[in-house]
Amino acid sequence: MRATVQEALAALPLVDHHCHGVVTADLGRADFESLLTEGAAWPGISPFDTPVGVSVRRHCAPLLDLPRHAPADDYLARRTELGPREVNRRFLTAAGTDVFCVDTGYTPHPLTSPQELAEAAGGAAYEVVRLENVAEAVAAGGVEPDEYGAACRAAAEEAVRRPGVVAVKSVAAYRTGFDLDPARPAGEEVVEAARHWLPQGGRLTDPALVRHLLWTAVDLGLPLQLHTGFGDNDIRLHRVDPTHLTDWLHLTSGTIPVLLLHCWPYQRQAAYLAAVFEQVYLDVGLTLHHVGPARARAVLEEALEITPFRKLLYSSDAYGMAEFHLLGALAFRQGLGALLQARVAADELSRPDALRIAAWAGGDNARRLYGLPAPGPGPDPVPRQHRD
Amino acid sequence: MRATVQEALAALPLVDHHCHGVVTADLGRADFESLLTEGAAWPGISPFDTPVGVSVRRHCAPLLDLPRHAPADDYLARRTELGPREVNRRFLTAAGTDVFCVDTGYTPHPLTSPQELAEAAGGAAYEVVRLENVAEAVAAGGVEPDEYGAACRAAAEEAVRRPGVVAVKSVAAYRTGFDLDPARPAGEEVVEAARHWLPQGGRLTDPALVRHLLWTAVDLGLPLQLHTGFGDNDIRLHRVDPTHLTDWLHLTSGTIPVLLLHCWPYQRQAAYLAAVFEQVYLDVGLTLHHVGPARARAVLEEALEITPFRKLLYSSDAYGMAEFHLLGALAFRQGLGALLQARVAADELSRPDALRIAAWAGGDNARRLYGLPAPGPGPDPVPRQHRD
Amino acid sequence: MRATVQEALAALPLVDHHCHGVVTADLGRADFESLLTEGAAWPGISPFDTPVGVSVRRHCAPLLDLPRHAPADDYLARRTELGPREVNRRFLTAAGTDVFCVDTGYTPHPLTSPQELAEAAGGAAYEVVRLENVAEAVAAGGVEPDEYGAACRAAAEEAVRRPGVVAVKSVAAYRTGFDLDPARPAGEEVVEAARHWLPQGGRLTDPALVRHLLWTAVDLGLPLQLHTGFGDNDIRLHRVDPTHLTDWLHLTSGTIPVLLLHCWPYQRQAAYLAAVFEQVYLDVGLTLHHVGPARARAVLEEALEITPFRKLLYSSDAYGMAEFHLLGALAFRQGLGALLQARVAADELSRPDALRIAAWAGGDNARRLYGLPAPGPGPDPVPRQHRD
Repeated sequence: MRATVQEALAALPLVDHHCHGVVTADLGRADFESLLTEGAAWPGISPFDTPVGVSVRRHCAPLLDLPRHAPADDYLARRTELGPREVNRRFLTAAGTDVFCVDTGYTPHPLTSPQELAEAAGGAAYEVVRLENVAEAVAAGGVEPDEYGAACRAAAEEAVRRPGVVAVKSVAAYRTGFDLDPARPAGEEVVEAARHWLPQGGRLTDPALVRHLLWTAVDLGLPLQLHTGFGDNDIRLHRVDPTHLTDWLHLTSGTIPVLLLHCWPYQRQAAYLAAVFEQVYLDVGLTLHHVGPARARAVLEEALEITPFRKLLYSSDAYGMAEFHLLGALAFRQGLGALLQARVAADELSRPDALRIAAWAGGDNARRLYGLPAPGPGPDPVPRQHRD
Repeated sequence: MRATVQEALAALPLVDHHCHGVVTADLGRADFESLLTEGAAWPGISPFDTPVGVSVRRHCAPLLDLPRHAPADDYLARRTELGPREVNRRFLTAAGTDVFCVDTGYTPHPLTSPQELAEAAGGAAYEVVRLENVAEAVAAGGVEPDEYGAACRAAAEEAVRRPGVVAVKSVAAYRTGFDLDPARPAGEEVVEAARHWLPQGGRLTDPALVRHLLWTAVDLGLPLQLHTGFGDNDIRLHRVDPTHLTDWLHLTSGTIPVLLLHCWPYQRQAAYLAAVFEQVYLDVGLTLHHVGPARARAVLEEALEITPFRKLLYSSDAYGMAEFHLLGALAFRQGLGALLQARVAADELSRPDALRIAAWAGGDNARRLYGLPAPGPGPDPVPRQHRD
Repeated sequence: MRATVQEALAALPLVDHHCHGVVTADLGRADFESLLTEGAAWPGISPFDTPVGVSVRRHCAPLLDLPRHAPADDYLARRTELGPREVNRRFLTAAGTDVFCVDTGYTPHPLTSPQELAEAAGGAAYEVVRLENVAEAVAAGGVEPDEYGAACRAAAEEAVRRPGVVAVKSVAAYRTGFDLDPARPAGEEVVEAARHWLPQGGRLTDPALVRHLLWTAVDLGLPLQLHTGFGDNDIRLHRVDPTHLTDWLHLTSGTIPVLLLHCWPYQRQAAYLAAVFEQVYLDVGLTLHHVGPARARAVLEEALEITPFRKLLYSSDAYGMAEFHLLGALAFRQGLGALLQARVAADELSRPDALRIAAWAGGDNARRLYGLPAPGPGPDPVPRQHRD
């Protein structure tokens, strides 16, 4: 009997092309609940009473030896009992991810390093450099306004020379949104903006300097990951519809690959860009664990309405809680598996094509794009005798 | 045997947290057809040839002793035969709504009072005060520009002191859209704007005065209902995407609850706001009866992708025709019931959790938010012996 | 036994109210792959590895005597073997379209004339005049700025007097987007804009002159087709959300019918406009063959959430490849058929109503709108004895 597409996807080692580390300390209730949502605390409302909270109780509880749908109190108590190292190990190994590209630039909590994350999972780690951090470190280190542009670029070049760096990332979405002047800022524009920003330092939000970072990414020549769509309330959602990047994508055509992260609720807009710009790729990370397996297929169906099959990548965008590294992988496998299997069942797609698409999205597209080594002698995604 | 989630929802008395009264006079064909749509008349096209028209013939005809899918002519004739009082009674009691929060500020037709509406339904009524009406009454009553701000606020304070008032509402969506300066307007800004508006009076559309009303709502301290998304052609839909309110929501954080009404087609954007702002809640009223049971689940699925389960409320936004009070309730019950039951069937959600979510959205969330009394000794939403 | 709604739709001759001709020359691999996508070439990625590529291999290959899901190489080889005339004939006759309204204004390749297209299909052809072409021809022909407005209008009047012209079309979406001043431009505004444009000529992108064309359409009195939403990367997608047309639709209310083409991903926004403006109609052409039968129902479900059933039209927007004329028709029939049959099965819609809606959307709405003759003595959409 041949494996279904779902079975093939369940066995496929994933490349998580954008995620974060996990918290190494024990998470108390408040910390856990805070990590569970992209929102602030809601007095009188448990963060477990959300789609993602329901998914944690359903899919994560059994890995802590609890029944499915265990109560939140039991879950938290058992989590504390096992301790963070064991909890993280269980979820990370269950995720079946063998490559992690880790954004090391967001660390409100003490987190595992990429190596520590990968070791706990039994996989390999690569690093994604967040450009805003580079710029803010340059500012914090002290630099004259007229030297800022060159210093920032030099620091970025140095940062991406670190072993294992495969991409850069920008959170321009959080700083200005995408309705920016697409042009490379002139030197004097950067100097003038730096003159205002440097004396105060801190968070970089000047539009000219954000544009300077986007163009620095072009100069670096590495793939650029861009936060788009869903995030915390620091986002103005309507300003991070990725189609606002169209003019910039025209100007940078033929240079670097651009990876639109998350995208929800603009997954169709992102798909449009992936379909019409050679350099654009997308994922629906972050969204996957927030909407859970119950809706992952629906979001992927929209994302794949017109996206070329070599343009979809997998990411979890998990941060802090290893539950998310698992839930992202689970929702991706179940959602994409159900989508593909239904098309095979309707004879809209051949089974070999479905298996290829699954392997591409699950890892091959990311390996190709970031130049990662082919998967090792691990379990074959589809047992050879089952291939047709 | 245990009740399905659908059965539980079918038996659940609803809180309709935002609706209008019904027309007390007999509705002729032209009036009925006009109420049936949010649009103008279409020469040569029957308003029955719409999703909502199909739903009326399918679900309302049997309550008038007609077969399902009865022709429009038969429907209108029978409606006239029974008379408005009997027609309204049948639909309102069939809706199974036991609490109505009635927006009393939109009355192009003579409508039932909140009390009359509730009596016909066998339920209880509360009132929602529309702030634009308060402001326009102040202007009509005669006031000097430099006294307008204080007079408007005093009138609003008086209006919400009426017995049974539980919330205020703004139709800023219709007047300016949400891409407004989020800041509280300075006193002189209000005076200046009033100086232009008062001499002509009429419809309040000045952005500074609309902002003044939104901030008056903050001062009043009651929950604020905001029309968002779908409405008649007086809306500029792209300007009523609720994410344009983000800056205002930051400024008013920690003050009043904000209820995003209707939301379609921005239900995902509304869900984002409900997920990341403590004070934001949402419903998909108005949409429910227009899309009908055939699509209510799909709209609710999107609305609930990331909305915390204590943040979704039920409303019909029915206006004029008691058919809409019924259809809204029916579409909500069937749509949410199918959504929850499917998740229970897939073991993505436990049955007790599904029943809790149903009870929360159907009424408890509204009761908690508006401080309404607990449901009376009416029929228990789920027979006790069926609970697990 | 009665035909299902799907069977009825499968037998229904369609009116394709907006399409283009097919390339008359043999298509080599590069040409074929270029036509297959709205995007540029993707080095290392086959355009067959897309939803539309999968649909071509699934649904078109058998018409070239190949197995379903035939490899791309086999497909291209067989296509060349048969030659363009035979290939076009096979797909066009299989499409079951008996009326084509052909936009003759986009011709980067040598294409069939409307007559040639219709003859190959065994149907009838009408013409749609693209207004930007008229304007650019006037400019190319030489005209003084102060005569441009009148000359352009005269040329448009002449163009629509050609036999078989039933509508005009604007690609304002590509030239400026829809966030335009809605007012008719004053004469001096047109002169001034013409003064800048005429010396250089070429592509018309001046906002005042684009507005002038939209208002010229109003003067012509014919239905106006407007590209909205999805297209190639010359679009700024967020600027072609059709709700940006709201003010213009208010100003032109009571004049000409406006047909929103394509619409995706703004099909709900288009539906809103169709529901609230008497003159607005929509289709989801272009989208249908790009998303394929696997997603056509989902897109149509959203488009029909609130669209009045006499406001939905069928178009393929096929260009160049006759595969698209077939796939558009196939996706429309299967998508709408599945949508309607599911509603009949759930008893949300009566079977006679479903059959009427199918016939309206498949052709009657377009015939009514463009004043086309009633269908000839061809195959009855639903065998008479099967009607109830």
